[in-house]
Amino acid sequence: MIRAAVVGASGYTGAELLRILAGHAEVEITCVTSRQSAGEKISSVFPSLTNRVDLICDPLDRDVICSKADFIFVALPHKSAMEIVPELLEAGKKVVDLSADYRLKKSEVYEAWYQPHSSPQLLGEAVYGLPEIYRDRIPQARLVANPGCYPTSIILGMAPLLKAGVIHPESLIVDSKSGTSGAGRSLKQGSLFCEVNESFRAYGIGQHRHTPEIEQVLGDLAGRELMISFTPHLLPVNRGILSTCYATLVEKISTGELLEIFRKFYHNESFVRIFPEGLFPDVAFVRGANFCDIGLTADPRTERVIVVSAIDNLVKGAAGQAVQNMNLMMGLSESEGLGALPVFP
Amino acid sequence: MIRAAVVGASGYTGAELLRILAGHAEVEITCVTSRQSAGEKISSVFPSLTNRVDLICDPLDRDVICSKADFIFVALPHKSAMEIVPELLEAGKKVVDLSADYRLKKSEVYEAWYQPHSSPQLLGEAVYGLPEIYRDRIPQARLVANPGCYPTSIILGMAPLLKAGVIHPESLIVDSKSGTSGAGRSLKQGSLFCEVNESFRAYGIGQHRHTPEIEQVLGDLAGRELMISFTPHLLPVNRGILSTCYATLVEKISTGELLEIFRKFYHNESFVRIFPEGLFPDVAFVRGANFCDIGLTADPRTERVIVVSAIDNLVKGAAGQAVQNMNLMMGLSESEGLGALPVFP
Amino acid sequence: MIRAAVVGASGYTGAELLRILAGHAEVEITCVTSRQSAGEKISSVFPSLTNRVDLICDPLDRDVICSKADFIFVALPHKSAMEIVPELLEAGKKVVDLSADYRLKKSEVYEAWYQPHSSPQLLGEAVYGLPEIYRDRIPQARLVANPGCYPTSIILGMAPLLKAGVIHPESLIVDSKSGTSGAGRSLKQGSLFCEVNESFRAYGIGQHRHTPEIEQVLGDLAGRELMISFTPHLLPVNRGILSTCYATLVEKISTGELLEIFRKFYHNESFVRIFPEGLFPDVAFVRGANFCDIGLTADPRTERVIVVSAIDNLVKGAAGQAVQNMNLMMGLSESEGLGALPVFP
Amino acid sequence: MIRAAVVGASGYTGAELLRILAGHAEVEITCVTSRQSAGEKISSVFPSLTNRVDLICDPLDRDVICSKADFIFVALPHKSAMEIVPELLEAGKKVVDLSADYRLKKSEVYEAWYQPHSSPQLLGEAVYGLPEIYRDRIPQARLVANPGCYPTSIILGMAPLLKAGVIHPESLIVDSKSGTSGAGRSLKQGSLFCEVNESFRAYGIGQHRHTPEIEQVLGDLAGRELMISFTPHLLPVNRGILSTCYATLVEKISTGELLEIFRKFYHNESFVRIFPEGLFPDVAFVRGANFCDIGLTADPRTERVIVVSAIDNLVKGAAGQAVQNMNLMMGLSESEGLGALPVFP
Repeated sequence: MIRAAVVGASGYTGAELLRILAGHAEVEITCVTSRQSAGEKISSVFPSLTNRVDLICDPLDRDVICSKADFIFVALPHKSAMEIVPELLEAGKKVVDLSADYRLKKSEVYEAWYQPHSSPQLLGEAVYGLPEIYRDRIPQARLVANPGCYPTSIILGMAPLLKAGVIHPESLIVDSKSGTSGAGRSLKQGSLFCEVNESFRAYGIGQHRHTPEIEQVLGDLAGRELMISFTPHLLPVNRGILSTCYATLVEKISTGELLEIFRKFYHNESFVRIFPEGLFPDVAFVRGANFCDIGLTADPRTERVIVVSAIDNLVKGAAGQAVQNMNLMMGLSESEGLGALPVFP
Repeated sequence: MIRAAVVGASGYTGAELLRILAGHAEVEITCVTSRQSAGEKISSVFPSLTNRVDLICDPLDRDVICSKADFIFVALPHKSAMEIVPELLEAGKKVVDLSADYRLKKSEVYEAWYQPHSSPQLLGEAVYGLPEIYRDRIPQARLVANPGCYPTSIILGMAPLLKAGVIHPESLIVDSKSGTSGAGRSLKQGSLFCEVNESFRAYGIGQHRHTPEIEQVLGDLAGRELMISFTPHLLPVNRGILSTCYATLVEKISTGELLEIFRKFYHNESFVRIFPEGLFPDVAFVRGANFCDIGLTADPRTERVIVVSAIDNLVKGAAGQAVQNMNLMMGLSESEGLGALPVFP
Repeated sequence: MIRAAVVGASGYTGAELLRILAGHAEVEITCVTSRQSAGEKISSVFPSLTNRVDLICDPLDRDVICSKADFIFVALPHKSAMEIVPELLEAGKKVVDLSADYRLKKSEVYEAWYQPHSSPQLLGEAVYGLPEIYRDRIPQARLVANPGCYPTSIILGMAPLLKAGVIHPESLIVDSKSGTSGAGRSLKQGSLFCEVNESFRAYGIGQHRHTPEIEQVLGDLAGRELMISFTPHLLPVNRGILSTCYATLVEKISTGELLEIFRKFYHNESFVRIFPEGLFPDVAFVRGANFCDIGLTADPRTERVIVVSAIDNLVKGAAGQAVQNMNLMMGLSESEGLGALPVFP
Repeated sequence: MIRAAVVGASGYTGAELLRILAGHAEVEITCVTSRQSAGEKISSVFPSLTNRVDLICDPLDRDVICSKADFIFVALPHKSAMEIVPELLEAGKKVVDLSADYRLKKSEVYEAWYQPHSSPQLLGEAVYGLPEIYRDRIPQARLVANPGCYPTSIILGMAPLLKAGVIHPESLIVDSKSGTSGAGRSLKQGSLFCEVNESFRAYGIGQHRHTPEIEQVLGDLAGRELMISFTPHLLPVNRGILSTCYATLVEKISTGELLEIFRKFYHNESFVRIFPEGLFPDVAFVRGANFCDIGLTADPRTERVIVVSAIDNLVKGAAGQAVQNMNLMMGLSESEGLGALPVFP
């Protein structure tokens, strides 16, 4: 059994890690930490866990964590993450970090979009944990940077097209919509029920911090640097990201041919589902599960392709993907603990 | 492996049975039926099932079902259920019927609230499948009548009090609120999004068909006939029933003492969670899971007890409980396939 | 033109007052105050007001308010309200206070449920501003205590029955459900979107501070003291309160006869709508409007009456009723500015 | 007083016309028609109208309508509308048609996207009722084709840029999201609460029937034919359309300069609100009101402009705009009856 810790368990991502890990045959959750709820049962923070995960929250203390666990999920906000990750690695632990702190390869890019980086030396070592793209690098990693939720949905939707060279990379426009759990459990007026329910709005237009992360990986796939237009919106649902991606086609190609490119690219993947022509994803079809669903159409009028991808931001966009990475790092079956079907309706 | 059929797979309850059974280690789903979708993949009816449950829907045909499966879940509307259940039993199959057709013991009560009954001889044999109350009768049953969603939430909330004799049975008032999946997937104006969202209303006041079912079991527990006031309401959520139950106390008793009665009554139960004093259930804490959560308070001002219980109407209120019954009927661990934690948020 | 101030304009009740007053033919909004947004345009706090109500927020300063306005709506939390109301009255202003501070007649009751009262001498003078019950006292009042949202829905639903003496007062059980705007715009974890959406729960069982207010007025109507069971619940909708009220009938009486009692009681009322037999209110049917809708049924099985009433908690439950009171205090038509129909869907 | 009829009153657009017209000082609603509810009170179809609009629904009969009313709002589905509009005009009535039947100028375009047209001779005469663009043609019209909801939001968001020539017309990509009332009140599985709530999906990608309407007017503004990529999505809210529009800039221009172009273009408009730099529209800020809110940003990285516009699809996108057109056709103040502020939250 893997002794696993969830550091930062009182946020939505922490709760989701616990939900998934509680059903994982090879894992025992041995430590949960929470600064504001230290000393309380985690099941009083999240009563949904009652009678199943009733651990007492530890404070955020390196020694406590390292004495109790061997595999550490760090579900802290960016900046807080890099304050503890290097110490965990030094103590010989394996780490999946769910923050943004180790996703970007270049510290200057990180510092332009976030703040100064206190352990830039780890940026080269950290593996970007998107198994469908970088699977071969993950098993030997001691630090995996778990991808952002928007990037996961967008990269999986665009990778086959960029790899196949059928679109103009610089034409890429991405219009994404995220459920509100993506904003976390901290107190912000914009996250209040009455401000989100019956509401819909764009935010961070042209400035969202996931932009360089998306561009880094898409550029890697395209074999050249590129810049995208990325507009996130806040959806009045708890979970789910739907990304609608537009790109100009290099030459005429049918919807069927494009779907074939996707089916081949994701041939052996358990968690990517390519929808047949005429069917498109819905965030409701992936709720609670680790899937990324993809549909697309070629529009002959405008010579563009429109790709729609959907994930659950807390699962494939965070906790589920983190467990997928753990499975790879620990030599387990990649889908262990991730077999649950989506909860619909 | 149990070869299982889901008859009536294109409704929400059918889909939920498939979701749960797909993760059950001892079950192979070998047959799904749907009148309106016969010949189609069930995963085109419910794309959430894509790549996991891709069976073609059979028509509603006794011979087909019996040739393909040994254990049958009947998820048809009442009246349709009793047209096929007797034939399935004759063919030697074990059946959990999720309709109302075999829940009432007296055919005249059934006929007063529903319509003429075509197989009243089975009413005596059928076992009311609420394991926490009638567990000992279920293993040997060939026909289990799966309880209604409202009755499950109300009976589990009231049973310990009636059994202990601490309330006046005739004082019972139940105010229940159900998520909209309880209304099914059929087309009704009242089920349209714009008619339910940002809306809340009572319906069927004093006339809901679950009333005699609740009174039958509560009367059984109280050892005398009783009548309740039961008012259901429609909640703008997908899943969940919360019942708020009011009863007059026979004599002064504290909240702590009442909770102790509940803890003893449900001492060995996996799926009933008694909340500590001051904490109350929320439908969000049971979403997607087979729990019934219960909280209560004694109000010394009015000498009443108020019990609040919450279930997911599609799980403990339907498909989850049906699988729990199957486990008992087949000699499996009662919680096999039902270990998933609630999906929060 | 009445020069009106809204003190505490950055909460939902304040915003609703501005929305209604902006369409009132006899009112000019001349002052809005907000501690946290002083110096900002109120339309930057609530962009819905853009180009229509663009006043700069003043700080909470008695002299500023009194110099700019003659009629003052105080939309502050309880305790904050009583710190300024006496000064406004001394300055000769008329005041509708929307907090709980002047609703209870007895300071000892106020102090048992809230905290010490700093101006108990005003409790006798303040008029409880429920026009359908106390209309004759309002025109000459200089201080009107605007009723709470729950009390408005419950009192209007129960008044005709208590007045007619057809129910046992001590049998009254009220199960209420409120939209989330009732919790205000302050930052609380329980008000976050992901904690309310797809959720439903009871709170403050047996302890809600509106209890003594309801009991005071219902006791007044019944001609004797009484105690009720009152359970509020949080609904995942922005606006609306639905109260389901249960009481034991003194003697057999039909639904039709009970409805006739209601129709007579509310004969000349513009804002109370009695639904015909078999139809029941929905919070969606009063959204954005000043109505209280009422439906009921007598249940011959249990000899109880079930009354359902619905209001918009921000309109008839707060700002609309406040304007109705202002109209009466200023000798205007009672419905001036309140003619808007509900926004459905 | 204008005697007005609402033909097709049992849909959401019909109900919204009644809500608005009931508050219009110069209008008396004298006729409402509904095929399925003929003989019933319209307030039993929409209880929100109780005690305010209690007319009996007439069947869809030209003679009845023409005898009772002088100004006719036709709120029928396309195809049904063109079966009655010519007769109403012949009878000398003025008509605002809210269907798609008279919006397109070329019958061959109509027939390519819809079906054969039975009165193509009226296509030239009908005026496209978007007052902010075609105001001068409306007063003398006897038939106004009320714009579609998506086109209203998109055209108002793009008109100033196309007119100013600062974007490449062929680069236009529009990602729109609509509340569910846009799908109407007819029974469709995809409109059920459980299929929309907690869901989000694209539909009609590259094929939506509003596409030619948008292209017709944008082409008119650009002075050349153009083709756009238009992807509608279904939002789990009752009301509101938010369109996010992407276009490539012809040359470098700042956000401030672009906003200045918008402010000039809409200088005297009551119903278009241009948000300051850094603020963006939300469908919640226009709920129930006739505004179109617009915000934008120039992205120097990608040399694109992103415009976000929001309307209430039932008001500025349908009934409110229809009343605005009526006001112009009847020589009234353009904003009469349309003064209500948005209902937030």
